[in-house]
Amino acid sequence: MIIEPQCARFESIALEGGATLSPVEVQYETCGYLNADRSNAILITHAFTGDAHAAGISHETGKPGWWDNMIGPGKAFDTDRYFIICSNVLGGCQGTTGPSSINPATGRPYAMAFPVITIRDMVRLQKMLIDHLGIEKLLCVSGGSMGGMQALEWAVSYPDFVRCVIPIATTWRHSAQQIAFNEVGRQAIMADPDWCEGEYYDKKPPARGLAVARMVGHITYMSDESMREKFGRKLREKEKFGFDFGIDFEVESYLRYRGNQFVSRFDANSYLYITKAEDYFDLTNGTGKLNETFRTVDTRFLVISFTSDWLYPSYQSQDIVRVLRRINGDVAYCDLQSNYGHDAFLVDIAEQSEIVRGFLDSTARLAQAA
Amino acid sequence: MIIEPQCARFESIALEGGATLSPVEVQYETCGYLNADRSNAILITHAFTGDAHAAGISHETGKPGWWDNMIGPGKAFDTDRYFIICSNVLGGCQGTTGPSSINPATGRPYAMAFPVITIRDMVRLQKMLIDHLGIEKLLCVSGGSMGGMQALEWAVSYPDFVRCVIPIATTWRHSAQQIAFNEVGRQAIMADPDWCEGEYYDKKPPARGLAVARMVGHITYMSDESMREKFGRKLREKEKFGFDFGIDFEVESYLRYRGNQFVSRFDANSYLYITKAEDYFDLTNGTGKLNETFRTVDTRFLVISFTSDWLYPSYQSQDIVRVLRRINGDVAYCDLQSNYGHDAFLVDIAEQSEIVRGFLDSTARLAQAA
Repeated sequence: MIIEPQCARFESIALEGGATLSPVEVQYETCGYLNADRSNAILITHAFTGDAHAAGISHETGKPGWWDNMIGPGKAFDTDRYFIICSNVLGGCQGTTGPSSINPATGRPYAMAFPVITIRDMVRLQKMLIDHLGIEKLLCVSGGSMGGMQALEWAVSYPDFVRCVIPIATTWRHSAQQIAFNEVGRQAIMADPDWCEGEYYDKKPPARGLAVARMVGHITYMSDESMREKFGRKLREKEKFGFDFGIDFEVESYLRYRGNQFVSRFDANSYLYITKAEDYFDLTNGTGKLNETFRTVDTRFLVISFTSDWLYPSYQSQDIVRVLRRINGDVAYCDLQSNYGHDAFLVDIAEQSEIVRGFLDSTARLAQAA
Repeated sequence: MIIEPQCARFESIALEGGATLSPVEVQYETCGYLNADRSNAILITHAFTGDAHAAGISHETGKPGWWDNMIGPGKAFDTDRYFIICSNVLGGCQGTTGPSSINPATGRPYAMAFPVITIRDMVRLQKMLIDHLGIEKLLCVSGGSMGGMQALEWAVSYPDFVRCVIPIATTWRHSAQQIAFNEVGRQAIMADPDWCEGEYYDKKPPARGLAVARMVGHITYMSDESMREKFGRKLREKEKFGFDFGIDFEVESYLRYRGNQFVSRFDANSYLYITKAEDYFDLTNGTGKLNETFRTVDTRFLVISFTSDWLYPSYQSQDIVRVLRRINGDVAYCDLQSNYGHDAFLVDIAEQSEIVRGFLDSTARLAQAA
């Protein structure tokens, strides 16, 4: 499957914070075919630094999508049956309007003049795209991590427009620890003199700060076990313990490499805006009363967490499941055994695939019967 | 107890990496009194950013020591019975020779010309101090975190010079995840242009990078639970969710405050050297064979870990205990229930006090009987 990105442009979007963004563009990719009654569409929502290229081979780069192991012919999200849509999030840097986009008021990039955005705003723009594509009801919205927050927000904001949601390795609100890790990343970026209060687009970007932020992220995506298995205390390019001050351990080399690699593909201001959107995320709007939030929700849920995910620990998924059960919601839950930490939803997909495939199948059959 | 620091100066110290440091000074504090047969001395070893001021009130600053709740008359380390010594570690910045000390070869601070040091080097200097004080055998060496590594190293390097060790919330070698967190801190410092390859002593220090490094540290010292209890999602200085881009959450404010506060008391180059010493730490010298390492050890062990400590997880302490049991070593172990994460050894001290008091008492009685 060779995939080309597409773009939709809208006159404006009203944001939760009160601002209006005008115009707004959303870049997206699709695979599979929309059926005659437009009932087989699935929206995939990407994680923090992900993008619309979820599946297939990119026409431009030749690279497979970030969830290509989950999406394709015969795979969990079966493109022989379903029409898959994935769009870049609002505030990002992959084609959808974000802080690096041109501000029509100035003719220069928004930078920090970009309005604060929320997960709900991201979902609102996705809804505009779905309307634009002429789809009246999504079969499913699914994603991991921040993608899972968007799936949850779809169920709450547009309960009549989505038959089922599959939030994976996620939370109904960011905890103090999750906020803290994001804040360290933001501080690393803003501490870099090259950040220049966000006005770096015609200069060199805050590469060092952004690389440090990414390194923190990478540690939180892996588990203690998976790091031990992957790196242990293996020394790099040395026969023996060298007593010098460079890179001694493979894990250091890996983190530096991943940090520097990230800089070439991600915008530092998007890092700030998107992490803030995650931190603001609270499905209950600050009431903490998840049962009231879910009262009007008529969507099927499949909630998935992973045993070794310490960034989005299983108890956060279990909070959601418990409340849905209490109000007799339609919810299935699996806490999948994995050593891969938060990355598991991307890499440890054997069981996840089976569970998602079965759940989608039953949802599609229920929809046909209705 | 008003405490004044003391200083010992030695001609030189030979380091594990092959270099010799000359001269070398060690700053230390004591409380309690050495008894006639010099059998009641306890060495307290401090954690990464700790210092020699473990107990009592500092004559200089008026502040209590970092383990004042554990050390004093009638406390776990009872100064009515024991003579307590705590010295600043080699490579630090609190009076003991470190990268900010004057290099006699140049008349300027060592900076990155300071030789790489190890936990074993820190312990070697402590041994020189103990010899200097005329103490032939320590009753105990105890500390938490990096202090625990030093306690373990004492048992292995100088088994005939210490009756018991109490390593707390520590490990026998740094894991990939522990190395990774330290590496992020180092990268944050070295990414700061004010670091200037370590040559910042006559200029402004790399305050922003050091603050970010400290923020990462603080997150790892607390548990998910303790952060939730302390901060939750409490918003700062706002009645309501404000949708702006400054400090929104109390946890952000706390981290920034602690980060900035740290800059005024700690040297960035010491941060680099000491975290490297932690990362190099492997009690088995790379063999991984803890049973061989412990074979010649004739010291009593009390090993303490905490259930919510995810930086130095309990399994790392249990590795030590299991091997000591297999070779029929004298080892007691407690995995204390606490929500305070790694900080527990500093703040959640009720049970820890009882256990330490009893263990010291029995060790002292065994010593008298011998």
